[in-house]
Amino acid sequence: MLVRNLLSTRIPLLRCCSSSAPCLFKVGDTLKLTRTFTNEDVMEYGKVTFDSNPLHFDSDSARNAGFEDRLVHGMLVATLFPWIISSHFPGAVYVSQSLHFKLPVYIGEEIFGEIEADNIRENKNSYIAKLKTRCFKNGGLLVLDGEAITILSSLVVAQVHP
Amino acid sequence: MLVRNLLSTRIPLLRCCSSSAPCLFKVGDTLKLTRTFTNEDVMEYGKVTFDSNPLHFDSDSARNAGFEDRLVHGMLVATLFPWIISSHFPGAVYVSQSLHFKLPVYIGEEIFGEIEADNIRENKNSYIAKLKTRCFKNGGLLVLDGEAITILSSLVVAQVHP
Repeated sequence: MLVRNLLSTRIPLLRCCSSSAPCLFKVGDTLKLTRTFTNEDVMEYGKVTFDSNPLHFDSDSARNAGFEDRLVHGMLVATLFPWIISSHFPGAVYVSQSLHFKLPVYIGEEIFGEIEADNIRENKNSYIAKLKTRCFKNGGLLVLDGEAITILSSLVVAQVHP
Repeated sequence: MLVRNLLSTRIPLLRCCSSSAPCLFKVGDTLKLTRTFTNEDVMEYGKVTFDSNPLHFDSDSARNAGFEDRLVHGMLVATLFPWIISSHFPGAVYVSQSLHFKLPVYIGEEIFGEIEADNIRENKNSYIAKLKTRCFKNGGLLVLDGEAITILSSLVVAQVHP
């Protein structure tokens, strides 16, 4: 139930193929989602994670540290990746994720997240997918770079209808 | 304000030194925090991150996938690291974080997070700290392993009084 509620929210979804036939995830395919993090998102994330870094909650602290204003938590921006993965592959199991925070993300900025299939190999009754994971802002500026390894029970890309 | 509220919660804090004198973070030092993730934590985290993987919200899905029950999101467990870092070094800036999810974390399990200073070097008016980051359960079982690089404005370890 929660799955459906969350996925019927305001964020547009981009897909790798049409909805007319099952789409099988293959090397080179990219799946994307876009999200604009709000002040409320940052406050709620801070509550549930206890991450109280003043860079996220106090404009003066952020500016004194050389930023334009308060930052979205980097690990919150990074949640775009499991969101994309779990939206299209429900039941996916995370093996690893690397995160390189390249540029600050400010509240209100539109962030484009994407996962790209770098390598896929069959393993018993499932698939181990190595993914390039990236987030961009402002028409292509890389803000977050990394790599994920995840176990997928199927390569069928779930078609999400917002 | 939020900083103080969050840090005055129920979670015990372990520190590297006594509160009688400023403690300077040095290679080999370890800072630790413990947290038990509740069902409410998982639900709230799912709302703010849109991570709707059924492994976190549906016991049958989790059991069918071979787990004992619903899992805490791995990226939620990983937030122990920025929590430890920002609690002791307010204003710290994340450069990178790697995460290797070794064992499942179930709702209600007590998780011990720790960061260990692996390397610290001065850089202009700040410090670049390379940290070993790990989480354990059940008296020493490694559930999450990785490494973080963070920029600290000072090596003074903030004394947190819950």
